[in-house]
Amino acid sequence: MTDLGGFRDHVAHVDLTDGDVSYAGVDDEDARKYIGARGLGVKYVFDAGPDVDPMGPENRLCFMNGPLTGTQTVMSGRIAVTTKSPLTGTVTDSHHGGWSGARLKWAGFDGLVFDGASDHPVYAVVEDGEVELRDARHIAGYGVHDTIDTLDDEVDGTVGRNVSVMAIGPAGENGVKYACIVNEDDRASGRGGTGAVMGSKNLKAVVVKSGTRMPKPAEPETFQEGYQQAMQVIQESDVTAPNEGGLSLYGTNVLMNATEEMDGLPTKNAKYTSTAAMHDAEGDDIDAERVSGENVRENILVDEPTCHSCPVACKKEVEVDVLHKGEEMNVRTESYEYESAFALGPNSGHTERDEIAVMIQRCNDMGVDTIEMGNMMAMAMEMSEEGKLDGLDEQLDWGDTERMIDLIEDVANRDGELADALAEGANGIAERFDAHDNSLAVKGQTIPAYDPRCMKGMGIAYATSNRGACHLRAYTPSAEILGLPQKVDPYEYEGKGELTATFQDMHAISDSFDICKFNAFAEGIEEYVMQYNGMTGRDVSEDELLEAGERVYTLERYYNNLAGFDGSDDSLPDRFLADGIPGQGASEGEYCELPEMKEEYYEVRGWVDGVVPDEKLDELDIDIGPGTGVSSGDSGVAPADD
Amino acid sequence: MTDLGGFRDHVAHVDLTDGDVSYAGVDDEDARKYIGARGLGVKYVFDAGPDVDPMGPENRLCFMNGPLTGTQTVMSGRIAVTTKSPLTGTVTDSHHGGWSGARLKWAGFDGLVFDGASDHPVYAVVEDGEVELRDARHIAGYGVHDTIDTLDDEVDGTVGRNVSVMAIGPAGENGVKYACIVNEDDRASGRGGTGAVMGSKNLKAVVVKSGTRMPKPAEPETFQEGYQQAMQVIQESDVTAPNEGGLSLYGTNVLMNATEEMDGLPTKNAKYTSTAAMHDAEGDDIDAERVSGENVRENILVDEPTCHSCPVACKKEVEVDVLHKGEEMNVRTESYEYESAFALGPNSGHTERDEIAVMIQRCNDMGVDTIEMGNMMAMAMEMSEEGKLDGLDEQLDWGDTERMIDLIEDVANRDGELADALAEGANGIAERFDAHDNSLAVKGQTIPAYDPRCMKGMGIAYATSNRGACHLRAYTPSAEILGLPQKVDPYEYEGKGELTATFQDMHAISDSFDICKFNAFAEGIEEYVMQYNGMTGRDVSEDELLEAGERVYTLERYYNNLAGFDGSDDSLPDRFLADGIPGQGASEGEYCELPEMKEEYYEVRGWVDGVVPDEKLDELDIDIGPGTGVSSGDSGVAPADD
Repeated sequence: MTDLGGFRDHVAHVDLTDGDVSYAGVDDEDARKYIGARGLGVKYVFDAGPDVDPMGPENRLCFMNGPLTGTQTVMSGRIAVTTKSPLTGTVTDSHHGGWSGARLKWAGFDGLVFDGASDHPVYAVVEDGEVELRDARHIAGYGVHDTIDTLDDEVDGTVGRNVSVMAIGPAGENGVKYACIVNEDDRASGRGGTGAVMGSKNLKAVVVKSGTRMPKPAEPETFQEGYQQAMQVIQESDVTAPNEGGLSLYGTNVLMNATEEMDGLPTKNAKYTSTAAMHDAEGDDIDAERVSGENVRENILVDEPTCHSCPVACKKEVEVDVLHKGEEMNVRTESYEYESAFALGPNSGHTERDEIAVMIQRCNDMGVDTIEMGNMMAMAMEMSEEGKLDGLDEQLDWGDTERMIDLIEDVANRDGELADALAEGANGIAERFDAHDNSLAVKGQTIPAYDPRCMKGMGIAYATSNRGACHLRAYTPSAEILGLPQKVDPYEYEGKGELTATFQDMHAISDSFDICKFNAFAEGIEEYVMQYNGMTGRDVSEDELLEAGERVYTLERYYNNLAGFDGSDDSLPDRFLADGIPGQGASEGEYCELPEMKEEYYEVRGWVDGVVPDEKLDELDIDIGPGTGVSSGDSGVAPADD
Repeated sequence: MTDLGGFRDHVAHVDLTDGDVSYAGVDDEDARKYIGARGLGVKYVFDAGPDVDPMGPENRLCFMNGPLTGTQTVMSGRIAVTTKSPLTGTVTDSHHGGWSGARLKWAGFDGLVFDGASDHPVYAVVEDGEVELRDARHIAGYGVHDTIDTLDDEVDGTVGRNVSVMAIGPAGENGVKYACIVNEDDRASGRGGTGAVMGSKNLKAVVVKSGTRMPKPAEPETFQEGYQQAMQVIQESDVTAPNEGGLSLYGTNVLMNATEEMDGLPTKNAKYTSTAAMHDAEGDDIDAERVSGENVRENILVDEPTCHSCPVACKKEVEVDVLHKGEEMNVRTESYEYESAFALGPNSGHTERDEIAVMIQRCNDMGVDTIEMGNMMAMAMEMSEEGKLDGLDEQLDWGDTERMIDLIEDVANRDGELADALAEGANGIAERFDAHDNSLAVKGQTIPAYDPRCMKGMGIAYATSNRGACHLRAYTPSAEILGLPQKVDPYEYEGKGELTATFQDMHAISDSFDICKFNAFAEGIEEYVMQYNGMTGRDVSEDELLEAGERVYTLERYYNNLAGFDGSDDSLPDRFLADGIPGQGASEGEYCELPEMKEEYYEVRGWVDGVVPDEKLDELDIDIGPGTGVSSGDSGVAPADD
C-alpha cells in the first residue's frame, strides 16, 4: 500500500446504498502506474466497469487528490472528480480549484469513492480521517449558495476559512445532464455532468473540515529544488508572472481579445469566427472587447482571490448592477471566466458584459456548467430561428439576455418544455428534434471557446478528447496562440496530431498530480519529475512519467472503447469541416482538416481507428483484469465487471 | 520540551574539549519566550555567561535555526550564528542565507551548540540526527573554497546539491577579529568575528548532509493563509517583486545609486557623503554609478542564484577579467553586494567595479567580513595620509586596488606589520596608534553603507545596535529611502528613536524565525503571526510576538550591560556629530543629532542611560538565573555564571 501523503488508509469508500463507510490505502502498483487524482480516479471508475448506467447506483463517483494536492507545490490547489458521464457516456474527469482538495488532504484523505445511491438526500462530512453521512432532506432543492450557508451553520468551523463544501444545486438533483459540482469559492467541476451523477446518488454535498495532516516531502532537497525552479519559471513567464503576466492580470479572459482578433472566437453558435465577422455580416451591435478581461478589469473588478498555493491569482471577482425585468439587481460573482463569457455571450449572439456576470452567478448557484448552458441556449436560438422548436412552449431569440438569465433557473428545475428539453444536453435535443446540424457537440459535449477553423490543433484535440469536446485535454492554444513551448502556425494542420497527443499526455500528468494546467505555460517535465519525486520519494525518470501520462490517457480511451466508442466518434460538428461553414476575417475560407489530422494522431498513438489494440495495452502495462485498489478489503465494492 | 520542527532532541551540544556530543530538546518556555534562531541563540550565549573571553574555550558558539527555517515559508533560508564577539565584546548574532539552515533542519536539528575548544583542527559532520567530529589537520590553513572542495570528497553526497559546508578560512584560524563563516553559496555570517571564535575552538568547518526531516505545519490552514498572504505582498512590492522589484533585479546593490544621489553614501572613510562630493572637492575620477547594481547587471552579471525558498533571488553572480600585477585573472564570485561594494570601493576611495569583485571573492575565500575589511583598509589609508602609520613596514594609498587585493590575504594570514595591525579591528588599531578620530566604529564594529548625516535614523540605529554599528538591527532606510512602511524625512531626527526601537523589535522577530530581513519591505506583523502560529501550532497574538521581539533585544542589551556596556557606548564616530565633518551636496551642512535621538530612544525603551533596569527585566519576564535549555542533561554545559 502506498502512502501518497504521509498517512495510511486515506481513501474512504462510501456505499451510499447501505451507508457503510470503509477505509483503504492506495495500491502501490496503481499509484506508480496512475499517479493519483485523474489517473487513479479513472482507474477506480474503470474498475467499476464501463457498461454501467451513468445515472444508476452502479456508477462510481470519485473525489480524488493527487500526490501534490494540498502540498506547497505551486498551483497544487486542485481536486479531480471522476465518474462515467451522463452527458457523453464516456469516462470523465473534471477538476476544480480553490481549497477543497487541500482541505481534503489535510483532513487525511487522498480520495473519496462513492458507490450506490441513498434513498434520501444526504451529505457527507469529512473530518480527521473519518467520513460521516448526514441527512440532507432539509436542504433538498436549495441552490449551491444557500446549501453552503446552511451547512456552514451545521458543522464546526467556518466555510471558506477552514471548511470546504462541494455541493450540487437543483440541476444536479434534477438530473440535468451537464449539472456540475460547485464549492464555496465558486470553483466548479464543471464539465461532463458530474453533478448529475452526484444527484442520482442523492448526495447533496460533501463537507470537508480542514485538519492538520499536511503532507511533507519525502525528499525535501529534491522537492525544494523542483519547487524553486517551478516558481522561478512561473515568475519569468509572460503568461503567469504574478501581477504582470496576462493570466494574472486578466484571468482566463485575457484570451477574449486575442481569439477575436485571430477570428478564432466561435460566435452565434459558431456560425461566425468572431464578433466582428458577425457584425460585418448582420450589422449587430456586438463586440467581444466589451466582455474581454481588459474591459472587466477596468470596469467591474472588485477582487482577485486565489486558490491554495497559487501565486497567479487568475480569479477575477466582479460586481455588477443589472436592471432585470425592471428591477435593479446587484450581483457579485467570484470569477468572470473566458469560457463562461464566450458561451453565455458571443456564442449566444451578444456581448452584454454585466448580464453575463449575472448568468455566471446563476449557473454557479443552480449548479450547471456555464459552457454547456451557454452553448445549449445558443443551439436553442439557432433551432428557434430555423423553426425546429416550433412545437415547444417557447422559443429563444439571439441575445435575449433577460430570458437567458431566468432560463438557467428553469433548466435547473426542468421547468417548462424548452427548459426540460435543454436539460437533456446537445445529443438529447439533437436526436429529439433531428437537429444534429445545430449541435456543437463532440461525443455529446459541446465545444469551448476556440474555433477549430482557426486553431486546427483544437480540432483534433476536440475530436480525440476522451471526455467529449474539451480545450483542457490538450491545450494547443498554448502553442498556437501564445507560442509555448514554441510557436506553431494555428492554420497549419500537419504536426497537430502529434502535438495533441503530446499535450494530452502532459496534461494527464498534471491532472494526476493534481496541479493546475496553467503551470504548463511555464513548467515542463523537468519540474514535474523533481516535484513528484521529491514529494513521494519515488525515483521516476522523465520517460517513466511521460509513459504514466500516456497510460492514463490510454486507459480512458480503452474504457470508452469498451463502452462502445470508436474512431467514428472522434468527430467534429459538420460546420467546422470541408463543406461546412468556412471561417471569416483572418480565418477567411478556413475549415478544419480533421481526417488528415486523425490519421497522424492515430499513427502517433498506435491506435487502430480510435481503438486501443491489445499490444498497446501490453506495452503500457494496462491491467484489464478486475481492479484492486479501493475495491479491496471490506469496502463492499464489487470488482470490475469487464 | 518543545518540538520546533516536528522532531525531538534536535539541539546537538558539542563539547569540543573532550569531544562529547549530546542531544537535547528545546525548553518549551525558552521557545515561547525567545522563538528560535537569534533569540534562542542569544539566550544560550547568555546562559554561558557574559564575562567570558570571546576567544577562550568558555565562549559558546551556536548555529541556530528558527521555527520557520527550512520550511516553505517565503525567504526562510537563513541560519543564525550567535556568540560573544571578539570584535565588539558584545553578544552578537550573524546570519547567512543559502541552504545551510534548511539542510541542518532536514538533517534533524534546530541548533548546534559548541563549547570548549579542540586541541587540534576538527570538522563536524551532521547527518540524520547525529553529529560526528573528524580530524581537520589536513585542511588547516586552506581557504574557504579549497576547504569546501576537499570536504566534498570526504563525505557522501554533493556540496551544493544535498550537502552544505560552513567553513572558516585562514582569517578565522589566525584570529582576525572580523573573520567570518562562509558557506558553499558564498553566503557569510559576516559580522562580529564569528569566524574568529570558530577558529579559537579549532573548528574548521561544519558539514551538513541534508536529510528528509522537513518540518510540516502544525496547522496547515493557518500556515497556508499566512504563506499566501506573504507571497502576495512580496509579489506586489516594488522592492521585492520577483524579476520586477529593485531588489530582485539589482540585488542589494540597487541602493548604490540611491544613496549616492541622496548624499548618503559614506565615501573615503566617510569624509564625504557621496563620490560626487569627493570628486568635487578633490577632482578624483570616482563615480558610484560605475559600481552600482544597474551597472553590474548590464555588464558583468552571469547568474542570479537564490537561497532556499526565496522567489526574490537577490544574489548577483558576476564574472570579471582583471589585470593584476601584469597577469590576467578571471574571477567569478557569487554575489556583488552593496555593502561589500561600498566598503571595498567608494569608502576606500575608488570605484573600480571589477577589482571590487575580485576583492569580494578573496574576502570570501579568506573568510573575512567584506564590510570590516574594506573599512579597515579605508582607515589605514586615512591614517597613512595623516602619518599615523609611519612606523609600520608599509603604508596604504587611497584606492590602491592592486595592493588591496593582496592585502586581504595578508590580513587573513597576519602577514606583515600593517596586515597584522589591521587584523585587530578598528578598536585595536585606534588604541594602538591613538587613532580614534579615524575610526568609523561603534563598539568596535565599523559602519555599513548608510551615512548617518543623511539618514538620521541610521545614526541612532548604529549607536544603539547591540552588536556594534549595523544597518540590520533597525533598517531605517526602509522608511527613509524606500518609504516603507511609510515615508519619513531622512534628515528629520525627531521620531527616529521610536522608529529605531520598533524596527529593532520587528527585526528581532524575523531573525528569530529565521527569515530574511528583506521580507520586511512587504510583510508585517500580521503575516508573521499567521506563519509562526501555523507552523508551530502556537496561538500567539501580534502583541505577544512583538513583546518577544522586545524581549530578545532587551536580553542582548542586558547581556552587554553585564559585560560592561552602558549608554556611553551608544556612540557614533565623531565625524558624524556636531563639530565633526558636515555632510555635502544634498546633505550639505548636515550632522547627526545623536543626543536628542538617544533621549527619545531610551525613553521609548524604558532604559536608563543605555542600561536595562530591573523593572524592565521583570516586565518582559527575562529570567536572569542560570539558564536551562540546552544546559540541561548530560551535555556537560555549565549553567550561567552571572
